[in-house]
Amino acid sequence: MSVQLDAQGNLRHLLTTEGLPRELLTRILDTAGSFSGVIGKSVKKVPLLRGRTIINLFFEPSTRTRTTFELAAQRLSADVLNIDVASSSTSKGESLLDMLRNLEAMQCDAFVVRHADSGAAEFIARHAAPGVAVVNAGDGRHAHPTQALLDAFTIRHEKGALEPLTIAIVGDILHSRVARSQIHALRGLGAGEIRAIAPRTLQPRGIEQLGVRLYEDMDAGLEGADVVIMLRLQRERMRGALLPSEGEFFSRYGLTEQRLERTHPQAIVMHPGPVNRGVELDPRVADGPRSVILQQVTNGIAVRMAVMSMVLGGQGEAAPASIEEVAG
Amino acid sequence: MSVQLDAQGNLRHLLTTEGLPRELLTRILDTAGSFSGVIGKSVKKVPLLRGRTIINLFFEPSTRTRTTFELAAQRLSADVLNIDVASSSTSKGESLLDMLRNLEAMQCDAFVVRHADSGAAEFIARHAAPGVAVVNAGDGRHAHPTQALLDAFTIRHEKGALEPLTIAIVGDILHSRVARSQIHALRGLGAGEIRAIAPRTLQPRGIEQLGVRLYEDMDAGLEGADVVIMLRLQRERMRGALLPSEGEFFSRYGLTEQRLERTHPQAIVMHPGPVNRGVELDPRVADGPRSVILQQVTNGIAVRMAVMSMVLGGQGEAAPASIEEVAG
Amino acid sequence: MSVQLDAQGNLRHLLTTEGLPRELLTRILDTAGSFSGVIGKSVKKVPLLRGRTIINLFFEPSTRTRTTFELAAQRLSADVLNIDVASSSTSKGESLLDMLRNLEAMQCDAFVVRHADSGAAEFIARHAAPGVAVVNAGDGRHAHPTQALLDAFTIRHEKGALEPLTIAIVGDILHSRVARSQIHALRGLGAGEIRAIAPRTLQPRGIEQLGVRLYEDMDAGLEGADVVIMLRLQRERMRGALLPSEGEFFSRYGLTEQRLERTHPQAIVMHPGPVNRGVELDPRVADGPRSVILQQVTNGIAVRMAVMSMVLGGQGEAAPASIEEVAG
Repeated sequence: MSVQLDAQGNLRHLLTTEGLPRELLTRILDTAGSFSGVIGKSVKKVPLLRGRTIINLFFEPSTRTRTTFELAAQRLSADVLNIDVASSSTSKGESLLDMLRNLEAMQCDAFVVRHADSGAAEFIARHAAPGVAVVNAGDGRHAHPTQALLDAFTIRHEKGALEPLTIAIVGDILHSRVARSQIHALRGLGAGEIRAIAPRTLQPRGIEQLGVRLYEDMDAGLEGADVVIMLRLQRERMRGALLPSEGEFFSRYGLTEQRLERTHPQAIVMHPGPVNRGVELDPRVADGPRSVILQQVTNGIAVRMAVMSMVLGGQGEAAPASIEEVAG
Repeated sequence: MSVQLDAQGNLRHLLTTEGLPRELLTRILDTAGSFSGVIGKSVKKVPLLRGRTIINLFFEPSTRTRTTFELAAQRLSADVLNIDVASSSTSKGESLLDMLRNLEAMQCDAFVVRHADSGAAEFIARHAAPGVAVVNAGDGRHAHPTQALLDAFTIRHEKGALEPLTIAIVGDILHSRVARSQIHALRGLGAGEIRAIAPRTLQPRGIEQLGVRLYEDMDAGLEGADVVIMLRLQRERMRGALLPSEGEFFSRYGLTEQRLERTHPQAIVMHPGPVNRGVELDPRVADGPRSVILQQVTNGIAVRMAVMSMVLGGQGEAAPASIEEVAG
Repeated sequence: MSVQLDAQGNLRHLLTTEGLPRELLTRILDTAGSFSGVIGKSVKKVPLLRGRTIINLFFEPSTRTRTTFELAAQRLSADVLNIDVASSSTSKGESLLDMLRNLEAMQCDAFVVRHADSGAAEFIARHAAPGVAVVNAGDGRHAHPTQALLDAFTIRHEKGALEPLTIAIVGDILHSRVARSQIHALRGLGAGEIRAIAPRTLQPRGIEQLGVRLYEDMDAGLEGADVVIMLRLQRERMRGALLPSEGEFFSRYGLTEQRLERTHPQAIVMHPGPVNRGVELDPRVADGPRSVILQQVTNGIAVRMAVMSMVLGGQGEAAPASIEEVAG
């Protein structure tokens, strides 16, 4: 989707990880790496986006995701404004465009968009004024690119190179924008082998064409994996009776200590959060030594800082590291 | 209303455009002009109100208006706090005063007040502590001075001097705080001729005494106009059966390309937003080359920056323009 | 409760005034005194907590209290994030801990916690990561330490030393976290005599063991008092028929000008606000010359700035006073 790159191949919007060149994906992770040092300090702030205005435009409520974007923006010294749009007022495409035109006229620099409809972020990006950037914070079942990038960052940080790794994604692949974005990001970064483990009813058609190996049996799918990514069971996204019960889901696809033994001895366990303990993960695994779930959260801030600074003009230069620059 | 000026004639509160001296109105627009340059930059921020606290005190919800004031305050480097007051807790005048006293005791510098009752902003200003400024962001059917000032700013910017202009205001003049404030501001700035175009049921009594020419027939009223200001149809403010239907309103008072031909060939079209397309304006006019509706939005930030900086002590000095000052 | 002090006796969390050493209580008030000067200026801001992130984690809504903490954080140049947690999602202790772990992983520095359950702030502090501070903004009927400290600050500021003073606390002592925290703070600071005046049904058992003299008769309790602290009648906290009516409460425990004559001629009158006029206080007393109710509000900002700066690492150094430092 070329709308997200400019003529020089720089990131103009972040709508999806699909089709992003490997060099650009790597640049995002490298930039995030430089911010990671900043946010570990007591003064967790750089003046990169001072005087820029970022609007969190949430058509679907998500305190958790909004918080991560708001923190990332604050740490870049941007001005942030939260606008929660009642879902009722978004039924007419025309009034959505009117709202965008108005916010653009107020000289806003970027929109972070969360929407229940697939394609909403791209729609907004296609209609945005030339200087305005759009970051997709989750659109329907389509994409959640910052989540996928923070996952890729976490894997690279914990494991080094992605090429030799076998990565298993487990759960409701069919309805998951997170899984979709992860597969594109990991594929794009050259991950060795990607496996999708799901009951037949939750396997999307044609996923093998993305180079993913499908497993219905969890034990087989976990065999030798270096990374296990558990998806969150989105109860509200499940249509009809695709699964008999949470209990049965756990017994077939829940990650227990016993199942974890099938993976590589240094395998890491990931989850986008919040974890439904006892549904996707045994609490002992969620809180165990293999879990990097909280590191994902920490890395999420750095990755969102990287994305926002890049779409707003800084294409991957390192973050200022000295306290003098920070105090600017 | 002398409460809004101090002994030196400086702006202490902004409650209404009624009675503001021409020199002061001009100073507000000139100050806004200097901010206009600042907000076009990528670093849209000046340190003028650093360390000052502005409270958006909204007794009536309006995300759109609150957003413009919040952005203006951020770009002046003020600290902003949004307080949405449930309408229920405002029934007793006493508890409103208690709330004010408390917020003043927290050393707040200014209140931006939106209220469903006419006169609420003035009531608050009359009871405010000496150092505290009040800006009216719309009170009942009474006044909306920042809207009127941004309209005047836009007209002056697009057309130059106001003296030779014929300005037509169209729609529900009777219930419109915007129209009322526009008439006072434009009159005060010396606009050539002001016309009010409305069905007889929506014409306020005595408006001719403000020097306004009344028209019931839109074609006649538009004849040769340099500026056409369309009002928003406030359905909720219409009492009873003053109008038969939106369709009939449009057929009599909607601005179409055909009707626009009666105006001056360089006439501009304005609307305070959000536009009800097909009710007040044909979409082709709203989005057409004569429309300056989005420029109004942009100018609204600069005008609100001007007003807030002036009531908080800077009486019209130019905004700092250099990046060094901004980075301060 | 040693959880709130570190090995050097510095303030790590502020959960309760109970058991705080006199030296530390004094240091908090002294630090607040240095901030008091800052917030009286037009630039009410110091860069002490620049780049630090403070989360207002309110499980119980309180616009008023949240506002005071938000202003205090802004004036320390911290980044603030407000999270209003629906009471429904807090029923499971596990998910509360998950939320905390997540916010900590986002590198937040402090939580300001308001909760309807006694002990909630301490629970959070006990489970907080090493670098994260917790400030109790009111937990059930247990404690409200910043309110008590601002009261102590106000008394010391108005009256000088606390040792010679007789301080009467009047009202629903039984259900009041404010009274409990006041008694511990004033005791800890060496106040001369503390009296609790309440109907028998609202006297907590064992309060005499805290060195408090109990009175059922208000006239007797006020005799010669230097300070009268009226509590707010928390109607929602009253269980069953402990009091016949607000009218009867006022006739027995309302503070009138006549009753005030029994106190010391320079006695001051305090109330945590908002005042129920005609229930706890005759309006003439609330707004009269003895009332320091609005000074309490002003002092509340300085005290909260002191507490936040101390738990985040600055143990009582004076606030920067020069404009140069502020402009940093």
